[in-house]
Formats: sequence, C-alpha cells, structure tokens
Amino acid sequence: MKNFVLKGSICYSKDKNTLEVMDEGYLVCMDGKSQGVYKVLPEKFRDLELIDYSEKIIIPGLTDLHVHAPQYAFRGLGMDLELLDWLNTNTFPEESKYKDLEYARRAYEIYVNDLKKSATTRACIFATLHVDATLLLMDELEKTGLKTMVGKVNMDRNSPEYLCESSAQDSADATIDWVEKVAVKYVNTQPILTPRFIPTCSDELMKKLSEIQKEYHLPLQSHLSENQGEIAWVKELCPDSAFYGDAYDQFDLFGGECKTIMAHCVSSEEDEISRMQENGVFIAHCPQSNTNLSSGVAPVRTYLDRDMNMGLGSDVAGGASLSILRAMADTIQCSKLRWRMLDNTLSPVTFEEAFYLGTMGGGAFFGKVGSFEKSYEFDAVVLDDTNLLHPQELSVKERLERMIYLADERNIAHKYVEGRKIF
Amino acid sequence: MKNFVLKGSICYSKDKNTLEVMDEGYLVCMDGKSQGVYKVLPEKFRDLELIDYSEKIIIPGLTDLHVHAPQYAFRGLGMDLELLDWLNTNTFPEESKYKDLEYARRAYEIYVNDLKKSATTRACIFATLHVDATLLLMDELEKTGLKTMVGKVNMDRNSPEYLCESSAQDSADATIDWVEKVAVKYVNTQPILTPRFIPTCSDELMKKLSEIQKEYHLPLQSHLSENQGEIAWVKELCPDSAFYGDAYDQFDLFGGECKTIMAHCVSSEEDEISRMQENGVFIAHCPQSNTNLSSGVAPVRTYLDRDMNMGLGSDVAGGASLSILRAMADTIQCSKLRWRMLDNTLSPVTFEEAFYLGTMGGGAFFGKVGSFEKSYEFDAVVLDDTNLLHPQELSVKERLERMIYLADERNIAHKYVEGRKIF
Repeated sequence: MKNFVLKGSICYSKDKNTLEVMDEGYLVCMDGKSQGVYKVLPEKFRDLELIDYSEKIIIPGLTDLHVHAPQYAFRGLGMDLELLDWLNTNTFPEESKYKDLEYARRAYEIYVNDLKKSATTRACIFATLHVDATLLLMDELEKTGLKTMVGKVNMDRNSPEYLCESSAQDSADATIDWVEKVAVKYVNTQPILTPRFIPTCSDELMKKLSEIQKEYHLPLQSHLSENQGEIAWVKELCPDSAFYGDAYDQFDLFGGECKTIMAHCVSSEEDEISRMQENGVFIAHCPQSNTNLSSGVAPVRTYLDRDMNMGLGSDVAGGASLSILRAMADTIQCSKLRWRMLDNTLSPVTFEEAFYLGTMGGGAFFGKVGSFEKSYEFDAVVLDDTNLLHPQELSVKERLERMIYLADERNIAHKYVEGRKIF
Repeated sequence: MKNFVLKGSICYSKDKNTLEVMDEGYLVCMDGKSQGVYKVLPEKFRDLELIDYSEKIIIPGLTDLHVHAPQYAFRGLGMDLELLDWLNTNTFPEESKYKDLEYARRAYEIYVNDLKKSATTRACIFATLHVDATLLLMDELEKTGLKTMVGKVNMDRNSPEYLCESSAQDSADATIDWVEKVAVKYVNTQPILTPRFIPTCSDELMKKLSEIQKEYHLPLQSHLSENQGEIAWVKELCPDSAFYGDAYDQFDLFGGECKTIMAHCVSSEEDEISRMQENGVFIAHCPQSNTNLSSGVAPVRTYLDRDMNMGLGSDVAGGASLSILRAMADTIQCSKLRWRMLDNTLSPVTFEEAFYLGTMGGGAFFGKVGSFEKSYEFDAVVLDDTNLLHPQELSVKERLERMIYLADERNIAHKYVEGRKIF
C-alpha cells in the first residue's frame, strides 16, 4: 500500500455542524488512513510522493446507504405510481429477470460502471433474491475497488409467484449457501442480510434470519415506515407489534448487536424513533425516492437534533440518480418544502449538515469513514469544476456548494478508496 | 429558408393530456413551420432534403418562461435564505456589477453559451436595470438564433442605493431609450417590459410603464405571490389593492390587451386566480426556485384544471439549473410533495402534463410554438440518449420520460428554431 500526499483545496466535516475548508492544503495518506490535513506540510511527510490537485477540490468519498442495483435499469421510468403499485408494476417484473444470468450481467455491468465513475466510495446495495445473480454482482463490484455491502434479498410471502421464495426454509437455505460462498471470497465486498421488508417476509423467515445473523455476524438492511399504505399493511400483518420497527425488533433484527440500516423512516413516530435511537439503527434518508413515490419527507431535523445515526441513499430506482451529491441537494430542498408545507418547527437542513450526512453520516456504517480527520480510512474524491464557468471569484466553500447542485460524473476527476486510487 | 424533413422518433403534445409518440416517423418543415408528422412520408414531400435522426428522439423546442440572466453567475450558491434576504444578500450585489460592461460581457457570454447548448429555444429573460448591459445581452442572444424576449429591469424604490433608479422619470426615460434602440434592431430578440415586482416599483413608475406599454405595444413580465413575506409587504405598500395581482391590474399591467407573464403564483388565492384567468395572464411555474427559496409549491393542478395559460421557468438563480427538462421533473416531484403534505385534493402533475407545460404551455406566449401540429413554428430538439445505457428494450415514451430525469446538455444533439438549425 502506497503512502502519499494530495495537494488541493480540501473540504471535510468534523461533525454535523462543522465543515472544514482549507484553500490549497495538504492531505496525507499512510497505510490507507488519513494522517490529517495541513496548511504547511510537516517535515516528516516531505519525502512522500506529492500529487498536485491544485485548483481542484478534495472531499471524502461519499456513502450511498441505500440502493437497489437491479432497479438501475429502470431509473427515471414509471414515476407516476406510489410504492406498493410501483413495486408490483415496475419493480417485481424487472427483478424477476435476474434469474437469467446473461440479463443480470448486462444490467449489473451498467450499474457497476456508473457507480465506479460516481463520487461514491461505499455503498449498501440490495440485489435480488437470486443467489447466482447476486454473486455475479459482487464479482463485478469487487473489481472496482469500491467498498460495498451487498444483500441477496429475502422474500417468501405477499410477492408475485414469479418472484417469491417457495418457503422460509428455502429462503434461509439459499441465504446460508450464499453467505458461505462469499464470506471469505472478497476483500472489498461483504454480505449484508437483506429481508426486503416486513410485508414480504414471514415470521418463520425472520426467525431464521435472526439465527443466521447471529451465527455469521452479519449486518442487516431493510425498509421502514416509507409509505402510508405500507405502514397500514404492516399493522394488519403484525397485530402484536407496537409499531413497524417493533416487527423487526421482535426478531432481534433492529440494531443493537446487529448493525442495521433502515431506509426511509418518513413517517416514524416517537416510539419508533426512540427505539431506533436506543438500538443505534442507521437511517438511510432517501429524499428523491420519497418524492418520486409520493411518500413524503422524513423529519431529518428531528433525527439530526437527536444525534441519531443517519446517512443518505440514492434509493435507485425510487430515486432516478445515483449521485449522492444530488442527494445532498435533494435533502436540503425537500427539508425546505417540509418546513414550509408540513411543520414549521423543523427548520430546513443546511448545506453543512447535508454534506455531513453524505460523507461522515453514512460513512460511519463502515467504521471511521467519511472524513479526513486523523485515522479515518482514506476515501477521497477529487472534484474538477472547471467546466462550470463563472465570471466572479468564488471561495472554495462556494465552489463546493455549487457542486452539490450542478455536478455530474464529468466533475469527478479522481477517486481513492482506503488509500488506493480507483481512477 | 430551407425546407426539409427530419426522420426519427417524434414526441409532442396535442393538448395538455395528449402526448403523441411516433416511433420512427417523419416531421416536415416548410417555411419555418411544421407541416405535420407522418408515419409514411407523403409523396409531395419526397423531394425535400431528408435528415436522418433514426434512433434519436425529436421533441418541440422548450420554453423558459422565467429566468434572470445576471443571476446565472451565482447559480447553486447561497441557497440557505428566503426570498427577501436572498435578494439583499446575493442578488442585488451581483446585479449591481452589470454597470461594468466588461463584467457583463464575461458573465452574459457564459449564460448565453449554456442557453444555446440547452434544449430551450424560447426564453423570457430578466436582465438588470442597466441599459447598456441589457443591450449587450440582447446582442449576444441575437447571435444564437434563439427567440427571446429580454427586459431591462425597472426598480425605483425599496432597493439598495447601488441598485436603484433615481426616480420614476429616470426609470421611464431609460426604458424608452432602450426600447427605441432595440425595437427594430433584432430579428430574434424582442423587448419585454420588466418592472421587477411591486415592492421595488413606485405607483408613479407603474403609471409611466403602462403608458410606455400602450405606446410601444410591449408584453410584460414580473413576479407575483411568491413568498409570504413579499405578499405581506405588498399588502402594506398597496392598501387599496384587493390582492397582490390587483396592484398590477390597477395600472392595467396584468394581462388583457397586454400579454403578461407572472412568475411563481405560489400563494395566489381565488380572487387573484380568477383575475389571472379573466385576463389571460401566463403563469411561469418555477418549482426548483420555489423549493430553494422555501417559497412552497404552486397549485399547478388548479391552474391546469382551469385551463389557464401556464409554462415552466428555470428562474435561475432561484433555480440552479437552466434545464427545462429538469423543470418538468421538478414540476412532477414538487406536485407530489404538495399533494402528500399540503392538500390531497390536488392530484400530482403527470409526465404528460409536465411535458406539455415545458413545450406548448410556455410556447403559447410566443404564438403557435411548442408542438409539431401543422402550422406550428418549427422549433425542434433532437435528443440522443445513447449514453444512458439500459439492458432492456424501452419504448420511445419511456426513453422520453427518462430524459426529463436524466438528461443534461450532452443529450441535446441538435436544435432548430423556426426552421433554422442552431447546431
């Protein structure tokens, strides 16, 4: 592993309210970890290779805490439906195609290639229920050098026949088969347990997944309190659960020992919020998806003020864009409309907070990731904004703010993950 | 003027609910006007030059009904403020720089160049109060071949000293000077009267503008009912007006004889809506700006159901993006959040409706513009979506829907205005 120094304008969060901006500084990487940011390079680092990104902006790698790889094929399509109809009309038919490995290869190559070119260095990814296609996706991801967690999806009820595992036992067996195949196969790509959501997972399946989790020490990702119809359905399905999240927690699949991401949390109420907080559940805030599927806007201000674990998700294909820079802008914009139209006690999310969520907030699910504070894993993205012309002087912070509204993959010049250059 | 035929997949609105899609058809242009769309090219057109855009999608040119050219310099910056603070902090200081013609040239060249590369063929544009810089902007726009209306801004009160005309008389004199200079100077670029908004225009000025309008037969553009603070201020300033729009109408500057655009109309109530409808006022719906400045979301469903005149505006730099394709997506997305969070009697805007608003809806301000129905002016945009890979077959309509969520200027392959090829 190489040690080196990057020179450029460096921006990173120290905490949710503090965005550090250093105009033309030095960022030191040793053994895959940040050794800190310096205005003047200390003597002891002067023998390291120096890579000059002057005029460019260096930020920590971004984390996509929630994305469905097989849905990338239909991003930006069929957006005039709500969640449950959208699943039946668009999502399930598309996901069923991934039993065909040739189709899966064609589709996943497109997703993985675009993910590689993006500003994302870490991602938590839903595959489909198909073991072989999930292995193929993980093979492709491994080659990119990005750090990801990938889940073979579990669903054994309330799903169309063409996309439903035949029993809880079959679903559990397939999961064990998959986990054993991938447990030691990869450096960058790890398995994550992925019950789709309560409506499609029987109690028996959830019980088995809980056992699997304990045996293999797996993290978990799922969906929570996204849509009104879904919430009402869970209430019907789980009359003994105090709230939606409690239906996971009854099987010990809701944080605590088990590192857990719950996507959306748009309509979580106090008891659910408290439980998430107690259990350290990570919230994946997915503003574009929650907009496209008319779900609403999550109370991000509440979650921020309570210092809960939270990051951003593209939630492709509920969201049309893979970009977590765009997700930062969406987070701010949606919080403004929520403040104006629904609850003016919850003030809008600031630029600094949105940047924190897309870097440190989500990165924390992977450990010390998403900042350049000393000892953080060295994930870095070099932004080149020269194609976005402007007639006046701009500060580095202004240039960074512009990036979240205007950047696309053309602005992503270089990317490093754990000290390795991806491009 | 050349006559020709374009071959490709052709999409256009016939009315707000009807999107026509023809897979591989022929679109005929004669004398700068559409001669219609054909699956089989009629005999009489077979001698015309045929330009083959097979595999590409041809749509009508888009209209940006509301944009501030001098604000393009700070798009995507300083978004954490509401309208009145944002004007004082960001907008007025930037606009004051346009008294310096060198600065104006540098800034306007960037805006005009990006506008040229976009899918927009028509635009109604605010300049600043400076006559010389406005002339420079109009010179630059004229060269592009795009059809635009440009306004020297009027503001003689409640504005910072560095950006305020010294009297109503001075503002009127400058306006006449400007109108006389540009009245016969251009083919593509027309003047439009542009009182900034009621708070910055004295009664005396409004009276004079009304006289100027009648003498020179000018259209008019301004702002209406965007933000709560602004609306309250107008109420204070104009105690004799029944509502905000009435403050324009008292000077006969609110539609009727005078072709008028009012941007925003986020919080218009029944009396204002009725008056706009009676007077045929065009609403410029600017969803991204209304989001960024926390203004809210206009009741687009109401305006659509009442068949009011309406199009889309980028409202740069309240909006960060010049793209009217993006404005279509924003229109749909914001209408969903409004429906979910504010008023579930007003159903979300559909893809077909949003496409109509960005083409025919706004185009109507320029005459028969924004469709390929026979005798419409021939504004056309050729979209190339080959960089947006997908593993499955997609219909032309699906490819078009994807474009509004995913396209950027790389997807704008060719553009025609009134039958002339821009690129």
